[in-house]
Amino acid sequence: MPNFVQRLANISSGSQTLVCIGLDPNPELMPISDVVAFNKSIIDATHDLACAYKPNLAYYEARGSTGIRQFEATITHIRDVAPEVVIIADAKRGDFPPTNVQYARALFETWGVDAATVNSFLGGDSMEPFLEYEDKASFVLCRTSNPGAAEFQDLTMQVDGKSMPYYQLIAHRANSWNIRGNVGLVAGATYPTQLAEIRKTCPELPILVPGVGAQSGSLQQAVQTSINSAGRNSLIASSRGIIYASSNSDFAEAARTATMNLRDEINTVLKNAGFEW
Amino acid sequence: MPNFVQRLANISSGSQTLVCIGLDPNPELMPISDVVAFNKSIIDATHDLACAYKPNLAYYEARGSTGIRQFEATITHIRDVAPEVVIIADAKRGDFPPTNVQYARALFETWGVDAATVNSFLGGDSMEPFLEYEDKASFVLCRTSNPGAAEFQDLTMQVDGKSMPYYQLIAHRANSWNIRGNVGLVAGATYPTQLAEIRKTCPELPILVPGVGAQSGSLQQAVQTSINSAGRNSLIASSRGIIYASSNSDFAEAARTATMNLRDEINTVLKNAGFEW
Repeated sequence: MPNFVQRLANISSGSQTLVCIGLDPNPELMPISDVVAFNKSIIDATHDLACAYKPNLAYYEARGSTGIRQFEATITHIRDVAPEVVIIADAKRGDFPPTNVQYARALFETWGVDAATVNSFLGGDSMEPFLEYEDKASFVLCRTSNPGAAEFQDLTMQVDGKSMPYYQLIAHRANSWNIRGNVGLVAGATYPTQLAEIRKTCPELPILVPGVGAQSGSLQQAVQTSINSAGRNSLIASSRGIIYASSNSDFAEAARTATMNLRDEINTVLKNAGFEW
Repeated sequence: MPNFVQRLANISSGSQTLVCIGLDPNPELMPISDVVAFNKSIIDATHDLACAYKPNLAYYEARGSTGIRQFEATITHIRDVAPEVVIIADAKRGDFPPTNVQYARALFETWGVDAATVNSFLGGDSMEPFLEYEDKASFVLCRTSNPGAAEFQDLTMQVDGKSMPYYQLIAHRANSWNIRGNVGLVAGATYPTQLAEIRKTCPELPILVPGVGAQSGSLQQAVQTSINSAGRNSLIASSRGIIYASSNSDFAEAARTATMNLRDEINTVLKNAGFEW
């Protein structure tokens, strides 16, 4: 089986897209109340335009076991209609090693997603249970998109006689954890300086970039700073801007239009940077 | 409704115990395969000896939505037979603020637990959705019990012209987040020096202390360093040492004996330090 990076490259070039769609069913924003029907409509309307779907577990857990069943039904539907689109469980999981064995089992076996977001606060030994799944990918939180992220992530840390911001240290560690070629990073579009430095530190790792759209990070900067030297290995994530593009019965059509617009805007930036598909 | 700290004080002094039992059903270690039956047997055999149950979500998620139903049935059973014992969901959740709204809803409303472990990597703004639940408690990861914890948590960070280890900075921040009296900390028994420093920085916050027993932290040091000036507000967590005390059909009875031994050992340390119940 090709590994995650190869699968991502295949679907990205096949559909000429770096768009990752966040499937975050929020009862306060959904135009219909049925979570699975909502997700299916969004998926059916967008799967030829996206390289990845990124359901965030929190939105499903908020509904308890019923929500987890809806999460499972959503994964099944993506596999049915768009088996080549990668699924990234936005889980931000991170516990001590024996417990991460269980989290990794949940994500990569029970739910069978292609990748997950993880939190490396507990150190490199805690990453190993995720990374043992060679054909999956683990996207390590590096510099998040929220205003409060700076409180810890931007602070200068002293390590091995050097000083660097915490997010840079994580980027360096991510390189060292990438023995099997299955590590990625999460870096928000809202802090383009940090995003650019992270890409410089990790020239090849896939970077998942939330924060465009509703969080109003600059799309142009996000694309320019997150792509690798071949104009690839960036996933531009949008959730609210796509799935809640309309609050009426035309929500799926509106999601398609929003996805197409985002894809085209990204591709214009890529083209201007010299990267045709 | 009394807040978490009051509820914890009530059950701790009522049952004269600081023991928190981790309910982590591991298929490779369980003497019977039925998760709910296993948990019920453990709970029935121990609830008069414990101040808290701490199910770790990872073990339930590994079974998908079925596991989450088992988690829900476990909570229901604890409420039925031991309504005064607090339930701490060991979840280590942490995402950006709007997503933590959903995680907090899952934990404190849908599942209705009394407390949860959380990860503050995303900053103080991300803690707020948890802390808005005034009568619940959020135990912030401060210094974890695994060997790799030092990789980030022990590094020196520079903040406001001062230098301190990351875990100490979290401890200071936890004090500042404790406006509503509902913040706790997680600090492992395996690193007693750090645990003692954390208690010094946060004289009153409840501290959840994993790492005794299977992880072989010293119980005496863990108790001495984690209690507050009244000999309270410490939760000594044990999972494997209690729930897998026997791999035979007498597992519930063995769990009771192990819990009683742990409670008594803790109480001896408390007594020697001048704290009778």
